Amino acid sequence: MDRLKEEILLHGEVRDGNILKVDNFLNHMLDVNLLNEIGKEFYRLFKEEGITKILTIEVSGIAIAVLAAQYFNVPVVFAKKVPSQNLDKEVYTSKVFSFTKGIEYTIRVSKKYIGKNDKLLIIDDFLADGNALKSLLDIANQSGAETKGIGIVIEKGFLEGGKILREEGYNLQSLAIVESMDQNNIVFRD
Amino acid sequence: MDRLKEEILLHGEVRDGNILKVDNFLNHMLDVNLLNEIGKEFYRLFKEEGITKILTIEVSGIAIAVLAAQYFNVPVVFAKKVPSQNLDKEVYTSKVFSFTKGIEYTIRVSKKYIGKNDKLLIIDDFLADGNALKSLLDIANQSGAETKGIGIVIEKGFLEGGKILREEGYNLQSLAIVESMDQNNIVFRD
Repeated sequence: MDRLKEEILLHGEVRDGNILKVDNFLNHMLDVNLLNEIGKEFYRLFKEEGITKILTIEVSGIAIAVLAAQYFNVPVVFAKKVPSQNLDKEVYTSKVFSFTKGIEYTIRVSKKYIGKNDKLLIIDDFLADGNALKSLLDIANQSGAETKGIGIVIEKGFLEGGKILREEGYNLQSLAIVESMDQNNIVFRD
Repeated sequence: MDRLKEEILLHGEVRDGNILKVDNFLNHMLDVNLLNEIGKEFYRLFKEEGITKILTIEVSGIAIAVLAAQYFNVPVVFAKKVPSQNLDKEVYTSKVFSFTKGIEYTIRVSKKYIGKNDKLLIIDDFLADGNALKSLLDIANQSGAETKGIGIVIEKGFLEGGKILREEGYNLQSLAIVESMDQNNIVFRD
């Protein structure tokens, strides 16, 4: 997506630890116009898949998922990272190790909200090592739902997450794949 | 909003500690169709206010804020609850005491993203004692922005938050105000 790549080149800041900071449109301020275009693009890519629900993970996946969901006319379910006393007792859980934060955490989805009749589109903002995504796939598998597609806004193509998932046969579509980046330069895969 | 009230009556679960659990359309699974109607209603209520940005707080405010923002054609800024190493050093901060969780936490907004030329609409899912909202207002005031409106999906009208903010002169609009609730009954204010 050209407009997305332009925004990344214009506003993205590369930080130590393979961090690409895009706070001004994706992770703190949300450019709803651009995110809506992203949602439409996910619809174009996955509209033939019979999607019944979009699965994402808090926090930054939510905005993209709900804007995309309008086009699919399906609900969004977001996995919770923070334990909540309000959550149902019956939950699917999976552990995630975050390289960015150096910690392990558990994500949870109520068993009520995804099940074996669902055809899922999984959406997230970033794909790096793919740890969060593997845990979402783990939860999808536990529920018996079928994962029909994975939509990612920005993939760090120099890390292994995307490669592994494509080799496993997932229909993974990333709207911008960063081939390499440093403080002076961000290069996209064609 | 009648459809919202119907959903609350149909799916809301009242729990100890004044908890109203609406996980199946607002806080875990997101009924994007209904949330879009909510966004449109906020636009109808605040469209004359010259809104330049919508301010909300992670997590559950984000979905409503982005869907509303489409109609206002403005960006969303969400206050962060979790410290992030990626956040700018220059931030507005404010402390929130959560009665639901029994803990105090700090919310943060980068100084880059709201400022004295902004006219803000503040959106959140729930209003109870108003502590989170007071902290958002504190951050708005620190930035010099003008708060032109506050849009709430569900207000617990039997608590003081809404009353105090209206007395302070804020243009606070809640789409459903719960006058009383227990495990058998939820009553709305007319």
